[in-house]
Amino acid sequence: MNITMAHGSGGASTSELIESVFAKHFKNDVLDRMEDSAVVQGSERIAVTTDSFVVTPYFFNGGDIGRLSVCGTVNDLLMSGAVPQYITCGCILEEGMDMDDLDKIIGSMAETAKEAGVMVITGDTKVVEKRGEFGGIMINTTGVGFMPVGVSLSPAGCKDGDVIIVSGYLGDHHAAILSDRMNIKNNIKSDNAPLSEMVSALIENKIELHAMRDVTRGGLGTVLSEFAKASNVEIDIYQDKLPVNPEVRDFCKMLGLDPVYMGNEGKMMCVVSKKDSEKALELIRNSKYGENAQIIGEVKAADNNNVILHTAIGGERIIGPLYGEGLPRIC
Amino acid sequence: MNITMAHGSGGASTSELIESVFAKHFKNDVLDRMEDSAVVQGSERIAVTTDSFVVTPYFFNGGDIGRLSVCGTVNDLLMSGAVPQYITCGCILEEGMDMDDLDKIIGSMAETAKEAGVMVITGDTKVVEKRGEFGGIMINTTGVGFMPVGVSLSPAGCKDGDVIIVSGYLGDHHAAILSDRMNIKNNIKSDNAPLSEMVSALIENKIELHAMRDVTRGGLGTVLSEFAKASNVEIDIYQDKLPVNPEVRDFCKMLGLDPVYMGNEGKMMCVVSKKDSEKALELIRNSKYGENAQIIGEVKAADNNNVILHTAIGGERIIGPLYGEGLPRIC
Repeated sequence: MNITMAHGSGGASTSELIESVFAKHFKNDVLDRMEDSAVVQGSERIAVTTDSFVVTPYFFNGGDIGRLSVCGTVNDLLMSGAVPQYITCGCILEEGMDMDDLDKIIGSMAETAKEAGVMVITGDTKVVEKRGEFGGIMINTTGVGFMPVGVSLSPAGCKDGDVIIVSGYLGDHHAAILSDRMNIKNNIKSDNAPLSEMVSALIENKIELHAMRDVTRGGLGTVLSEFAKASNVEIDIYQDKLPVNPEVRDFCKMLGLDPVYMGNEGKMMCVVSKKDSEKALELIRNSKYGENAQIIGEVKAADNNNVILHTAIGGERIIGPLYGEGLPRIC
Repeated sequence: MNITMAHGSGGASTSELIESVFAKHFKNDVLDRMEDSAVVQGSERIAVTTDSFVVTPYFFNGGDIGRLSVCGTVNDLLMSGAVPQYITCGCILEEGMDMDDLDKIIGSMAETAKEAGVMVITGDTKVVEKRGEFGGIMINTTGVGFMPVGVSLSPAGCKDGDVIIVSGYLGDHHAAILSDRMNIKNNIKSDNAPLSEMVSALIENKIELHAMRDVTRGGLGTVLSEFAKASNVEIDIYQDKLPVNPEVRDFCKMLGLDPVYMGNEGKMMCVVSKKDSEKALELIRNSKYGENAQIIGEVKAADNNNVILHTAIGGERIIGPLYGEGLPRIC
């Protein structure tokens, strides 16, 4: 069975679609009320983030757009120091989409939400004309988290002597999507994952965190450039410390790609005080999805706002934000 | 200038687009921090709603997709009894979209947010390949509102003797979009409007409200059917009481459309206790966008869950939810 324009009418067909797919997978006390707004418990300070996902193909090696749409939003909340609580699901379906595919994607969202500890509380579905031969899907998720008292993180928080940690292999998601799109068979899998366990380990153990960011579109280079500028500091990183899966490294060499600018969907970068850096590294390595974490560099007091990559052969290269294309529709 | 795939890369081009359009129009203390999550003041109970807008054409008689995307979400929050506070802006742009059009749409969102009393606190922008000759735009907005203590509204709240009020002319948005799409010249304008003033008048004056709903996709028929079912009652409405703009009535006759199933974007239906019904009608008529409000029917204790339309010529017709197509991409 396929999606038709009638599924977007707001009438009986829309209700049937919601019942048979969305309500089935997301089942919970709040959503089951099926009201236009979800009324839920709040907190004194809340964090809100939104993200639209347009990745193509919607099933890829290691994940799918459903899992991705939960991970991306949950990770954004985590990076601000918030405890993720609720998530919304806004789907734009293309006419002709296979109903079984939709069912798998929404099932995957539900499973990932469970893993990440968030509840899907409200949603919306629209249908548009199809773009290619088969219908696709675009998903917006908006997340709401509670801010613990006293937590405050900012890209402007980097200080002289701080240590930069990356939580695992760079470039996996980018390389997986590109492989799928180019029809190259390999073992590279997307890293799409919620970082809830990793971040709560750092916060519960009172690591002195100065800044955190998930390394997504634009890659590590773009994040570090923003941080150096926001904090008015220099950041030095070392090429031979950058964690990259050997198969991804070979893939990058073959295609002339730089892992520093490749998108990830289950990796974060954090800036911690030097005194806590070894402990932070250990906590990350011992948490789910953190086994390949590395200390990759440090912050220096210099108002040049440069990010300097020290290459393996002893050279230096200034890293700016990604300019131009990037990989289209990677997330 | 036109939107390119590079504007969706997450790198420097994305930043430029955000600075030159979104940040310019939405400028406020929270958004200006440009962090991945917006951290804002919360409250004990919050209401959350999400909606994606895919209306085409994106400029139409009386409004545009930007204004619509704020009204739709603000109205959904209001209908649950919440006081709208924050809104997110997730844009999916099609390659080739005219940058001046984008600027007008985002400017219109900003203006409508101001009118509705909500702050745009966070956003996201993606770019996808174009669908038609020119690029389009799809906007998701998610709204967060604070729930006042004691307020609780539900489609299941309709009671025997309650009175049904509609806040104004039915079918204007639907008729305006259809006119635009069919290239018919007339004076019909979309009713897209935020109902903040109207709803707060009812709540501040302690009107005994039992249920409220904005009358959007699926029309009045679909809303009433849901209410009758959720409350296990009969609802009787009277055709000669239904407020319809004379020009829209003629347009409907010409095309065989029924205003009962047509979408609106600035109209609500509320169910109030009989004792407060005249006062409620007066409050609505005296508030912005409410001058054509009417009492259209009443709730009866009968567990048939029927919605009965008493026609102008003395007949009776059972009204079900909209089945099938509706007008595609109306919101």
